[in-house]
Amino acid sequence: MARIEIVYFSAMGHTEAIARSVYRGLGSVPGVEAGIMSVESLGDPSDEQDASWFRLDSADAIVLGSPTYMGGVAAEFKRFIDQTGSRWYKRVWMDKLAAGFTVGGGLSGDKQSALQAMHVFACQHGMIWVSMGVGVGDAGLDRLSSSIGLMCQADNAPPTQTPPPEDHATAEAFGMRVAHAACRWAAKT
Amino acid sequence: MARIEIVYFSAMGHTEAIARSVYRGLGSVPGVEAGIMSVESLGDPSDEQDASWFRLDSADAIVLGSPTYMGGVAAEFKRFIDQTGSRWYKRVWMDKLAAGFTVGGGLSGDKQSALQAMHVFACQHGMIWVSMGVGVGDAGLDRLSSSIGLMCQADNAPPTQTPPPEDHATAEAFGMRVAHAACRWAAKT
Amino acid sequence: MARIEIVYFSAMGHTEAIARSVYRGLGSVPGVEAGIMSVESLGDPSDEQDASWFRLDSADAIVLGSPTYMGGVAAEFKRFIDQTGSRWYKRVWMDKLAAGFTVGGGLSGDKQSALQAMHVFACQHGMIWVSMGVGVGDAGLDRLSSSIGLMCQADNAPPTQTPPPEDHATAEAFGMRVAHAACRWAAKT
Amino acid sequence: MARIEIVYFSAMGHTEAIARSVYRGLGSVPGVEAGIMSVESLGDPSDEQDASWFRLDSADAIVLGSPTYMGGVAAEFKRFIDQTGSRWYKRVWMDKLAAGFTVGGGLSGDKQSALQAMHVFACQHGMIWVSMGVGVGDAGLDRLSSSIGLMCQADNAPPTQTPPPEDHATAEAFGMRVAHAACRWAAKT
Repeated sequence: MARIEIVYFSAMGHTEAIARSVYRGLGSVPGVEAGIMSVESLGDPSDEQDASWFRLDSADAIVLGSPTYMGGVAAEFKRFIDQTGSRWYKRVWMDKLAAGFTVGGGLSGDKQSALQAMHVFACQHGMIWVSMGVGVGDAGLDRLSSSIGLMCQADNAPPTQTPPPEDHATAEAFGMRVAHAACRWAAKT
Repeated sequence: MARIEIVYFSAMGHTEAIARSVYRGLGSVPGVEAGIMSVESLGDPSDEQDASWFRLDSADAIVLGSPTYMGGVAAEFKRFIDQTGSRWYKRVWMDKLAAGFTVGGGLSGDKQSALQAMHVFACQHGMIWVSMGVGVGDAGLDRLSSSIGLMCQADNAPPTQTPPPEDHATAEAFGMRVAHAACRWAAKT
Repeated sequence: MARIEIVYFSAMGHTEAIARSVYRGLGSVPGVEAGIMSVESLGDPSDEQDASWFRLDSADAIVLGSPTYMGGVAAEFKRFIDQTGSRWYKRVWMDKLAAGFTVGGGLSGDKQSALQAMHVFACQHGMIWVSMGVGVGDAGLDRLSSSIGLMCQADNAPPTQTPPPEDHATAEAFGMRVAHAACRWAAKT
Repeated sequence: MARIEIVYFSAMGHTEAIARSVYRGLGSVPGVEAGIMSVESLGDPSDEQDASWFRLDSADAIVLGSPTYMGGVAAEFKRFIDQTGSRWYKRVWMDKLAAGFTVGGGLSGDKQSALQAMHVFACQHGMIWVSMGVGVGDAGLDRLSSSIGLMCQADNAPPTQTPPPEDHATAEAFGMRVAHAACRWAAKT
């Protein structure tokens, strides 16, 4: 039994669509209770009654998602990162699992920098980072050959058309991987 | 003759104090016209009359500065980065020089990640990155031994007391280095 | 019960000394069987009888250690990384835990780049990365305030004198942290 | 008038083929004298008579090239990097221009990490980094949308067939860009 929350920012809907595919992957694993939230739904981080922050604080694993803007996570996502300072100080997220995904317009497009930013953030909190782990030998998955986290690529078209189905299938497989890791990790708390 | 602008974010005043030392270094080099601005002073990036954006667009070199928060640039600084999208698209900053500095509480403290984020941003714009270049053999300078850009460290005390004088001296030397590079680069436009 | 191997390169002995402190930390946790090996002791990676490679292949967790040379892991350590290509292809190290440490001459000194190189390598193998997790609130530990992995700093003196005792204490605490994570992770294989 | 050297490692010939396209780009710019060498042709770095090291020491710009292996530069290329330690100490390469390229099997494939390793190396030497600067708006160029340096992608086929012609055209355009920057920079030594 593991609780996993996805927290993402999406301006155009492409990252949200990928978040939903990761969410489907999480939910398809027995024993997992998955949640999904936009950073915009988060209240004041110092409000102890805020339901969204409480869900993050009590999760076994947190999956981070942002578009790649100018070679990094979106400013709106960085704001969420910066808001976690008091939790960092009190080590609230220590030893949770973390993983990340990003969506950008180019095939490579500095998406690795955005994932590195998520990774260093998770490590500041003392979290344990789940790598991509999908790809080599998985026919048709991970077309961008990423390893730190999930990379997807969107053309200049609506989220119903892009990223392509392979990216959504990869996102779902990535969600399943994170779910299995969280179940294994949570079993021995 | 070269025009150089410093653009920074500072919440507590430490990064601003370092920005002022870099500015002193820039201004001490003959033929340099230096400016300094907070990201909060910038207007709407699509406003063609905005004086601050105009100063950036017409500069020979731009020096970027932000505290390191949770292993990256501050969200307020990332907002500035994201606001440059239309300039990126039109290649307005192509071939300008760029350099960066950051201030954090720890000796290492993931400050390199923050500088990497500035570097990838500058490269997205097609800028040319001026490395730290101060330190090896410069007695007492670069106490944190950084190379991508300038790193300073501040204790939990007012900006009048911290970062220490060595960091301010390093910042001034770094400013002089960027100024010399900009003069050399601008001479052949 | 968990088996953990440290694999490191050391030219001058400083990284080896830190490796031994991490090893002490690993071994101090009940139920852990720890090993330590230099990359120079590894045989041909395609030799299925090689005892050192077998120890790595059968470990629950692998801790990586290298000095930081010119902003990255030592070439000798990179050679070890490159030698794992066939294991990467066959996913032999998939889902093992990984962690990393580095030693350099400067306080910051681009040690984060070396740890990033270890992290991306571990992620290529589909491993799970254990962050530093020691420091905030641990009096006297993690003096360099690292988060991706363990950073130590050595002066130009013999390994008996430098890095300082605080770094060795931090290394031992880091070893204990990795050991606890490996026990928790291995319990549910 | 500028002298530019390409120094690369190539095991299978793909990186060498791209190096030759960068070289063609360099040589097509009037006033540029370009050279190209494999890291394997370099002699003892402490031999003051070594012609290849002399060419690097006296160049205005150095272009670095390596395949991406396991998320970083090849060990053979890292060995070259580590061999430059005495030049780093004496600041021999200070203020030269630097740029980098890499070739890998995947579309993204952690190539950005390899370029970051080249960048931090160049910055340790106090060099000035020339970004990719080719792509946005250049029809058909930079299909992988890189910005720190040049990324090319090779399939599992001979270097005569892969990377594709677009990557060679991009490499040539990148060479021209570096050449123009070096001429501008060298004019005011």
